[in-house]
Amino acid sequence: EAPGMAKNTNMRWRLPLVCLLWEVAMIVLFGVFVRFGAEADAHWEEEKQEMNLTSDMENDFYFRYPSFQDVHVMIFVGFGFLMTFLKRYGFGAVGFNFLLAAFGIQWALLMQGWFHSFKDGKILIGVENLINADFCVGSVCIAFGAILGKTSPIQLLVMTLFQVTLFSVNEYILLNLLHVKDAGGSMTIHTFGAYFGLTVTRILYRPNLEQSKDKQGSVYHSDLFAMIGTLYLWMYWPSFNSAISDHGDAQHRSAINTYCSLAACVLTTMAFSSMLQKKGKLDMVHIQNATLAGGVAVGTSAEMMLTPYGSLIVGSISGIVSTVGYVYFTPFLESRLHIQDTCGIHNLHAMPGLIGGIVGAITAATATEDVYGKEGFIKAFDFTGVYQTRTPSIQGGFQAAGIVVSLLMAFAGGAIVGAILKLPIWGDAAAENCFEDGVYWEVPEDEESDVYHMHNPDKPASP
Amino acid sequence: EAPGMAKNTNMRWRLPLVCLLWEVAMIVLFGVFVRFGAEADAHWEEEKQEMNLTSDMENDFYFRYPSFQDVHVMIFVGFGFLMTFLKRYGFGAVGFNFLLAAFGIQWALLMQGWFHSFKDGKILIGVENLINADFCVGSVCIAFGAILGKTSPIQLLVMTLFQVTLFSVNEYILLNLLHVKDAGGSMTIHTFGAYFGLTVTRILYRPNLEQSKDKQGSVYHSDLFAMIGTLYLWMYWPSFNSAISDHGDAQHRSAINTYCSLAACVLTTMAFSSMLQKKGKLDMVHIQNATLAGGVAVGTSAEMMLTPYGSLIVGSISGIVSTVGYVYFTPFLESRLHIQDTCGIHNLHAMPGLIGGIVGAITAATATEDVYGKEGFIKAFDFTGVYQTRTPSIQGGFQAAGIVVSLLMAFAGGAIVGAILKLPIWGDAAAENCFEDGVYWEVPEDEESDVYHMHNPDKPASP
Amino acid sequence: EAPGMAKNTNMRWRLPLVCLLWEVAMIVLFGVFVRFGAEADAHWEEEKQEMNLTSDMENDFYFRYPSFQDVHVMIFVGFGFLMTFLKRYGFGAVGFNFLLAAFGIQWALLMQGWFHSFKDGKILIGVENLINADFCVGSVCIAFGAILGKTSPIQLLVMTLFQVTLFSVNEYILLNLLHVKDAGGSMTIHTFGAYFGLTVTRILYRPNLEQSKDKQGSVYHSDLFAMIGTLYLWMYWPSFNSAISDHGDAQHRSAINTYCSLAACVLTTMAFSSMLQKKGKLDMVHIQNATLAGGVAVGTSAEMMLTPYGSLIVGSISGIVSTVGYVYFTPFLESRLHIQDTCGIHNLHAMPGLIGGIVGAITAATATEDVYGKEGFIKAFDFTGVYQTRTPSIQGGFQAAGIVVSLLMAFAGGAIVGAILKLPIWGDAAAENCFEDGVYWEVPEDEESDVYHMHNPDKPASP
Repeated sequence: EAPGMAKNTNMRWRLPLVCLLWEVAMIVLFGVFVRFGAEADAHWEEEKQEMNLTSDMENDFYFRYPSFQDVHVMIFVGFGFLMTFLKRYGFGAVGFNFLLAAFGIQWALLMQGWFHSFKDGKILIGVENLINADFCVGSVCIAFGAILGKTSPIQLLVMTLFQVTLFSVNEYILLNLLHVKDAGGSMTIHTFGAYFGLTVTRILYRPNLEQSKDKQGSVYHSDLFAMIGTLYLWMYWPSFNSAISDHGDAQHRSAINTYCSLAACVLTTMAFSSMLQKKGKLDMVHIQNATLAGGVAVGTSAEMMLTPYGSLIVGSISGIVSTVGYVYFTPFLESRLHIQDTCGIHNLHAMPGLIGGIVGAITAATATEDVYGKEGFIKAFDFTGVYQTRTPSIQGGFQAAGIVVSLLMAFAGGAIVGAILKLPIWGDAAAENCFEDGVYWEVPEDEESDVYHMHNPDKPASP
Repeated sequence: EAPGMAKNTNMRWRLPLVCLLWEVAMIVLFGVFVRFGAEADAHWEEEKQEMNLTSDMENDFYFRYPSFQDVHVMIFVGFGFLMTFLKRYGFGAVGFNFLLAAFGIQWALLMQGWFHSFKDGKILIGVENLINADFCVGSVCIAFGAILGKTSPIQLLVMTLFQVTLFSVNEYILLNLLHVKDAGGSMTIHTFGAYFGLTVTRILYRPNLEQSKDKQGSVYHSDLFAMIGTLYLWMYWPSFNSAISDHGDAQHRSAINTYCSLAACVLTTMAFSSMLQKKGKLDMVHIQNATLAGGVAVGTSAEMMLTPYGSLIVGSISGIVSTVGYVYFTPFLESRLHIQDTCGIHNLHAMPGLIGGIVGAITAATATEDVYGKEGFIKAFDFTGVYQTRTPSIQGGFQAAGIVVSLLMAFAGGAIVGAILKLPIWGDAAAENCFEDGVYWEVPEDEESDVYHMHNPDKPASP
Repeated sequence: EAPGMAKNTNMRWRLPLVCLLWEVAMIVLFGVFVRFGAEADAHWEEEKQEMNLTSDMENDFYFRYPSFQDVHVMIFVGFGFLMTFLKRYGFGAVGFNFLLAAFGIQWALLMQGWFHSFKDGKILIGVENLINADFCVGSVCIAFGAILGKTSPIQLLVMTLFQVTLFSVNEYILLNLLHVKDAGGSMTIHTFGAYFGLTVTRILYRPNLEQSKDKQGSVYHSDLFAMIGTLYLWMYWPSFNSAISDHGDAQHRSAINTYCSLAACVLTTMAFSSMLQKKGKLDMVHIQNATLAGGVAVGTSAEMMLTPYGSLIVGSISGIVSTVGYVYFTPFLESRLHIQDTCGIHNLHAMPGLIGGIVGAITAATATEDVYGKEGFIKAFDFTGVYQTRTPSIQGGFQAAGIVVSLLMAFAGGAIVGAILKLPIWGDAAAENCFEDGVYWEVPEDEESDVYHMHNPDKPASP
């Protein structure tokens, strides 16, 4: 793009058109396909008797709803506020994340429903579907992190449509065809989401992005807003990794492993953040992001018998890898590979996601009946039916295959979607207007003039 | 009021007097009336055996406590921070909301207790009472939104006293006399609360309010603080609408319907926010508020078999109505009807509340045994005892009557309470000092001078 | 220290060394000692059958996980953001709290594990251990409040190591040797943590602290950030006090008592905040802190039959004591006793903690079989085994002894740890650089120059 060339970023007809068109499509498709699952349907009163359930507590709602709400907070407040670190893109960070996630969960209910909850021509939904829809959208929020500040809301909606679709296909291949375990989504959510986003941002490479470099940083208060996102992601990650695990010990174990991994990750992140800086000062970018790598890196294995000390080891390593990534890899990716990664998702999701996939494969491959108990072993890996002859080492191999499939889907899908988003019809801003809320948002005047004044001391402030 | 006429806003004796007097009254009344319900009393050990309960899980605490905490967050952080959008009224928004809600829940425990949990001269409370007290106070927080920035804390405490009382009476009429279903409070909380608040603000009309017009807007960071409120309200609304529904499928269903409605509402809000603005830019006021209308609009029907696509339709419509309301109705209400509605509760609570009541009436009127199952049908509408001959269409009629009663109670109650609040003894500020924390709060000096400096560039900043 | 004398605050090697050393130690110790408890282990499938459990719901995870997550939020967001009120120490408040808590929970899992969950050479952990670890760290967060802004991160890590150790010893003495009840930690967490922190800050007395006085205040937005912390602490305190109570009525009752106490506390805090100020204006320091005293003050007695009106009384009193403390005691402690208490933990935790211990002793001493029921009485105070002959009055005596032991441990421990922290090797800042993030953090440039400009109007802002 030529510097200074005006672009038409007026969303007045395009954004409403896309939003309304897709919402109408959702209504029609929900009308045709989506119904309440048995545990949310008023017929459950009768169902309970047929199933000999003596307590309303046996409804899946009570096993999963608290975790669902925690995941919900991670998607909307966690990801949304984590991205408010930019000084002039807080509205876009929170607002566009809100928009894409609200659309994405509807489409994900359908896509995942067709693959996993389809019965007699209907998709039957319950609380587990809501969690899975949030999970799926999580991968879009991750990809959004790579292109934050450089795309129009329409591009984000288009990306969401395609990414949710591809996510669901990839998830189906992993969970159903390869029979892989990935309850916390190291592969399906993080590896796929991050490499998808990195491929998209590579295709959308903007050579003149240094024109908006002054807006790519944070200010003091925006860093504190971002810490709200960080902490909610960090605190609720045990719920994320345990939300769709089997009832009972598996959910319990997932939460403990994740708690341990995340705690360790904070210490190694702080250590390396200080160590890699000449004056030994801590960098908020690392604290905001790398402290979360521990959650990503046990996403596959948390429900397995990873053990608390295993979790500490994985968390420690992922904190180091992620912090080193922010210091050395991100600049390298931008300068050499032309991958402009606004939030550094390569460090927070891509590499820790790969670690998570690998740790999951190893943990599965080394599982024994001794460690899990005879029944626990079968239940943990669902070695029933056609899979009853699978051995741990074979399972480990399939887990590893899951990583490869996720990567391939991400690269191929990202390339295609990136090419679509490159079309000059979506209303993205010129390079000098990136990372600037004023392009798509009504911004309060006073503050704007204040910030303007701050950067232009010779210009008088408006009254 | 004459412009510039000084008013005595010193709270030193009045506010402590009211607070302490009412707290002493609470202590006395709690001492006389309030005791632990069976499930919170230490006698439960014996009660369990009598009732043949085999598990501690059967305690209502485990069915409702997670939802209670979500509702609690909505009342204190959700409403509190949603109202921090004003540039210089953040302390008042969060702090006065905190004050009135903390008082209101105590008084609501008593009022609602007398109506619903009174046994042998005692009010027996449990977690459901806590939720209902929060719900009741929610209606006061809504009314607070209309008069935000224009009243003294004493006026708010007086309003809370009366509004909680009226709320409880109205709720009793609807739930007990009309036998209406309204688990998420479209009528009892939103319609009543909003029209009550709008009536109060009409009575308190301030003709010279344009004198503080420069403080009625937001600044960049205050809009982000408000988004914290928005998102917590949005995320936890499924808990709000399901918190006091019947155990099992009803809670499950309420959460799903609300989740769907809110997701759809975000898309139509974004669409109309962009469409109704010449440059197609999104307005944070709409995103902060209208995105929540979908939760309000399924408040009555969420626990019914509204179905996911029905929820999408209701959510879509309410997002449109609410956004259009902000653009066209709010200015009209102010200029023509002299209703100064600071937060636009007419758009977020009043109209969507009416929609919610109507949708509830229709959903009830069209219910069939086929859709609900024989037992589910009776349980959903509690068609037992004297109500066992009620038909869906009659229920629909009573639901509609509930809307009318709520409106009448709101108008009559609001008029009386507004008249009381108009007395010149409560210490409200002059028009030119509205929307300004400095009137009732110690405000940090530095920032004040900074903001002052911002608006008065010719005046030097204080050292 | 001599004013202006440069101190070496470069953390580059010291902080990484401490972090990594301790994380390695954690990994080794976890590897040797920590394993999953029965309910989190994959063998639970078999265990369930042996124990005749018919439902996965009987897993402790479902009784406590929602409360655990609320407690988790209180530790990391609650305490972290409560301390962001300082204008230039937000990174340190949230970030160092994050660091010390993440380390502390690992060490607490070990220390508390050795005392309470040690079996056949292994520490067996489950969700209750996670809660207790968070509780233990809560006492460190409290102590951090006293020394906020005046210590290096290494000092905080050293303090955490020692304080967690001492906390665990004190807790063991109280719960196991004295057989004291203290589910919400009025004594073990608040009294111990606060007096420990006050002793440490006394030892670390800085005579020249007025040099950084301009940074000891808040700015408008930092006060709003702090309110996020306040509200999450306030809202989730019912979960805090009920998190490790017995299943069933005890958890239910704890939540209700705490809810009532906190509600009353808000009103008396507001009353006294206004009353003690000449112009009757409310002070955000009081609202941010004293409103929470009600939660502290029922920490011991909440699970007992304190009754709702008893809770209102305790909450009312603690709000008054705490607010009066901020106005009169804190300046006195600083000027006369040389106790510099940055956050006023003496008012929020020390005094209310003592009240909590005393109320607990009285409530226990006055317990009767009539009020609790025969079985409820035994269960509530665990009067079984060697304790089956204990009477309420004797229990009350032991409860009182628990307060004394906690105080002695706090003073002795705080003195020793304070002396260690006084060694000139930990990299703390000079007096004039206290309360300043720039010492240990990379701070965004623009804002810094902006703030600088604000305080030095004669100096031009940087472009």
